Amino acid sequence: MLGLGLIGGSVLRAAVRAGRTAWGYNRSADAIAGSREAGYDTGTDLIAALHRAAETGALIVIGVPMPAVDPILDAIAEHAPNNPLTDVVSVKAEVAAAVARHGLSATYVGGHPMAGTNQSGWSSADPDLFQDAVWVVGVDDDADPDVWRQVASLALDCGSVVVPVESGEHDRAVARISHLPHLLAEALAGVGAVSPLALGLAAGSFRDGTRVASSSPDLVRAMCEGNADALTEALDEALAVLTRAREELVHERSTRTLVTAGHRARLLYEEHERFDISGVEPGDDGWLEKFRSAGRLGGVVRQIRSASPG
Amino acid sequence: MLGLGLIGGSVLRAAVRAGRTAWGYNRSADAIAGSREAGYDTGTDLIAALHRAAETGALIVIGVPMPAVDPILDAIAEHAPNNPLTDVVSVKAEVAAAVARHGLSATYVGGHPMAGTNQSGWSSADPDLFQDAVWVVGVDDDADPDVWRQVASLALDCGSVVVPVESGEHDRAVARISHLPHLLAEALAGVGAVSPLALGLAAGSFRDGTRVASSSPDLVRAMCEGNADALTEALDEALAVLTRAREELVHERSTRTLVTAGHRARLLYEEHERFDISGVEPGDDGWLEKFRSAGRLGGVVRQIRSASPG
Repeated sequence: MLGLGLIGGSVLRAAVRAGRTAWGYNRSADAIAGSREAGYDTGTDLIAALHRAAETGALIVIGVPMPAVDPILDAIAEHAPNNPLTDVVSVKAEVAAAVARHGLSATYVGGHPMAGTNQSGWSSADPDLFQDAVWVVGVDDDADPDVWRQVASLALDCGSVVVPVESGEHDRAVARISHLPHLLAEALAGVGAVSPLALGLAAGSFRDGTRVASSSPDLVRAMCEGNADALTEALDEALAVLTRAREELVHERSTRTLVTAGHRARLLYEEHERFDISGVEPGDDGWLEKFRSAGRLGGVVRQIRSASPG
Repeated sequence: MLGLGLIGGSVLRAAVRAGRTAWGYNRSADAIAGSREAGYDTGTDLIAALHRAAETGALIVIGVPMPAVDPILDAIAEHAPNNPLTDVVSVKAEVAAAVARHGLSATYVGGHPMAGTNQSGWSSADPDLFQDAVWVVGVDDDADPDVWRQVASLALDCGSVVVPVESGEHDRAVARISHLPHLLAEALAGVGAVSPLALGLAAGSFRDGTRVASSSPDLVRAMCEGNADALTEALDEALAVLTRAREELVHERSTRTLVTAGHRARLLYEEHERFDISGVEPGDDGWLEKFRSAGRLGGVVRQIRSASPG
């Protein structure tokens, strides 16, 4: 596990709890001290961690923010270029492109656990973070079925369900349901926190609407800026919706269109139901396209036949 | 208590629990059946409830949505024009104007408990809803000190702290910290809920950012549209902030300005501390201006000397 922040640290904890042999690397000695004290096999020596991976054929998981991905890939390309490789970064197309630049695509299948808190760092890591969460596993062209099984198996061991999604589709969807929420929360915080009076009157709607603005600004920026094109599209749509609402409010003193559509959309979210994907296994004829179609419709994978041991 | 929805019903429950003699009116027979079954003194006869108030000099509390306030004031002006009068409606200037049109200003002091859930109706009413919440009590020109004491005393009995705020200031502040959050939540829900894939990947940031979009659309509209001018100003500011963020994202692939400011604002909110207003009592020389200044700075009233019995 390369990177032991909130997500990487939680993966290490969950993997070890599931009975896997796992070890971790982190740049910061502080995180290492904390994780070692808690009994985990971790260190600040990236090369040693990679050599061990190369010797054992272990699945390598990249868990650093987007701006730190390239140097990590440099090291992997040098010291463990043939290992199965995945990541837990919140954007997928940009990671896949970086992996390709490093010649590592053949053994790479991207991942993204849709879980988090507004905390960061090893001290917030929680082996239950992924329990019942959705873990996206990439189904881009030429994905290797065996690597796919290994990545999905890790996600399942961490307590998640797996949603198979192609990188570009993932990025467009999370721009809307994860990155745009962050931008709106930041904007709401700024417009609301204008006076002690406003801060003192703020109740549930402001608290919940700005919650993610308390996340580390560096991590929010890394996430949003790594998905700039898809996020621009989602933001433009939000601006268009809010501008139309503004016109209706000013000229008709009404919020009908926005509120009616928003309420209906929230009910869709509350009523959304997953279904289990069955009848297709990694490596079957057309498995990538079948997984993509099922993922698009709300399907999840809850078990994998004959997963490789971790 | 006139109106027994989430807020009105919770006020009735909390007031009775605090040992007050209280009775309620609601238009809907369903709410009345539920509240009577629970042992409350309620009915669908508005005139009878007002006659009883006129005979006893009870504090009348208006707890209906803004569009229903006028007919209620018609009945009060006819049947109980001299009673102390308050309300729990989420906008204040428009209620105060309606009260003035009915010639009831002399005994009116507005109120607004900053509490709520995304539920509505008597069945959601909860005597603990106002515990540790902020309850705005109006300090408009010519507010009657005795009525003010009675309104504040009700708020304190319901477990809240009292923030003294003038109507216009209240409306401008809640436009930012309550009504704008609703509009952004509705917009986010609409932009996010575009596909089963997006709905399936949605996690905490989308859930919290859209929570209030599950509120009754009629109540959200009544609240927002009753505060159209102040809300337009807040919305324009949000649009300006988001438009600048869009330019920075497109041209510099950066979200620095927005994220930095939003994070700082959210910390201000988290670090906001109330202080107790002391040394001024309703009716003292300059009490209204002193209360206004203190409220603006984050002051709250936690006790009232010699409050009138409820």
